[in-house]
Amino acid sequence: MKEEVEKGMRNLQDKICEGLEKLDGEGTFQEDLWDRSGGGGGRTRILEGRIIEKGGVNFSAVHGDLSPKISNALNISSKKFYATGVSIVLHPRNPWIPIIHMNVRYFKTDSGHQWFGGGIDVTPHYVIKDDAVFFHKYLKSVCDKFDLEYYPDFKKWADRYFYLKHRQETRGIGGIFFDRLSENEKYTMKQRWGFVQSVGNSFLPIYRNLVQKNYSKPFSEEDKDWQYHRRGRYVEFNLVWDKGTKFGLDTDGRTESILMSLPAQARWSYMHDYSDNENAVFTQEILKSSNIDWIVDN
Amino acid sequence: MKEEVEKGMRNLQDKICEGLEKLDGEGTFQEDLWDRSGGGGGRTRILEGRIIEKGGVNFSAVHGDLSPKISNALNISSKKFYATGVSIVLHPRNPWIPIIHMNVRYFKTDSGHQWFGGGIDVTPHYVIKDDAVFFHKYLKSVCDKFDLEYYPDFKKWADRYFYLKHRQETRGIGGIFFDRLSENEKYTMKQRWGFVQSVGNSFLPIYRNLVQKNYSKPFSEEDKDWQYHRRGRYVEFNLVWDKGTKFGLDTDGRTESILMSLPAQARWSYMHDYSDNENAVFTQEILKSSNIDWIVDN
Repeated sequence: MKEEVEKGMRNLQDKICEGLEKLDGEGTFQEDLWDRSGGGGGRTRILEGRIIEKGGVNFSAVHGDLSPKISNALNISSKKFYATGVSIVLHPRNPWIPIIHMNVRYFKTDSGHQWFGGGIDVTPHYVIKDDAVFFHKYLKSVCDKFDLEYYPDFKKWADRYFYLKHRQETRGIGGIFFDRLSENEKYTMKQRWGFVQSVGNSFLPIYRNLVQKNYSKPFSEEDKDWQYHRRGRYVEFNLVWDKGTKFGLDTDGRTESILMSLPAQARWSYMHDYSDNENAVFTQEILKSSNIDWIVDN
Repeated sequence: MKEEVEKGMRNLQDKICEGLEKLDGEGTFQEDLWDRSGGGGGRTRILEGRIIEKGGVNFSAVHGDLSPKISNALNISSKKFYATGVSIVLHPRNPWIPIIHMNVRYFKTDSGHQWFGGGIDVTPHYVIKDDAVFFHKYLKSVCDKFDLEYYPDFKKWADRYFYLKHRQETRGIGGIFFDRLSENEKYTMKQRWGFVQSVGNSFLPIYRNLVQKNYSKPFSEEDKDWQYHRRGRYVEFNLVWDKGTKFGLDTDGRTESILMSLPAQARWSYMHDYSDNENAVFTQEILKSSNIDWIVDN
């Protein structure tokens, strides 16, 4: 399983990078290979392009000792682990294109525990209803091929996870989030892997659609200002609440790879007043309303 | 004690705001009064001026119930608390002027525990040796009037506290940091309060000096770019490591007041290359060398 998954993750990174370069039309990925002192390593790939201002597509496969703190947090007793996965964050230039994030991962311990985790979610600077509906319908179609419970469960999980408690707002319009998908009465690990691969393969068609619909839309200085402020919230989520980021920084992960998720620029204004910007007002309303059902309600 | 300290903190905020408006020469503080639902409230004051791009001088006096989580973290058994203090962060426009932070606070429980905490520290975008020596000598002179152990102890404390573990660098050139200064064989609470007031009163003369020496220095686009990247690190420290920020966001503090510490803009570049900027290279060297003795070594 491990070898197959690692190979699959590498292939996924390759395929996505190729597709994104084509989509961007100008930028090419810069690759850094790195080793982890405790074991394993990765391939960090960064793009600065015409459509994507700053994007990262990371692959890693690491192994080594689990600190007691982390074993505890994961509620397992094993001392050794292996983990592989692909992580993506893309910050586009045009504020009408959303920020997108995907992660797919596989985790294994020496005592035989193994599971998959991951998800895709989207953070529009301005929420566009049709795009949100398209995105959620696409995810539902991917999930429904495996289990009709997946989409509703994993959609709720994303709503809970991508939440800025201190702002009382969601990071974006959610998507799906799942963790600890392991073997059970219903599914083999092979079937779980099939699902995770389908999620990984949905990334390109989803983002291609969102980019192609929006990349040529005109935008103003006011729109850029709003985008920088939304990016500020993205920074807040990733540095204050995101468990993956915390885990990485706590376990001496490669900082430059972990923090590729941060945007090229962000802004903060005290009591930011955006009341003149109706698209911003609409977006904030959406982010303040939790548990929107994009499929039934639209 | 409590009444006297609260009054003193209010006065300190007033005096500092008045002095900063004079120093800036153009900006005036915008004040927001707020109530805390659990008890108490504060006065948040924000300045956007000619020299100071974004600055906050906050006073608060809050009271209420201590959650078990926080009692635990503080290692006390009390259920009720009272806290008052002044917090300042100033982000100047000119990259040659440092970012400055000050906090003085008083904490009291219903079971009779009470203590002072606080400190001043400086985060230069570019380290200027003479300014660093001036700053540390000034702090030493303030401390030495009370106890010859204060400066060396509190300087080390600041070096430990203002540290970005994931970057293996200090936030800036440190300063002093102290906590839990309570009554003991040597000092009464009145004497502790005298020290804390002296720290508070040192803020204006220190920053006035640093501003006046640097505000008219010319700077380039490259210098601004470097400043935005240094501000990015400031954001990382405050959102990932700063206990005060974490405590505030965890305890439903007023988010806009807590996050006034964030700069107007910040930038992140993957593997930021600043090797052509010799002032940046010098600054990074300083931030990577811990425990610099600015007084003896210079």
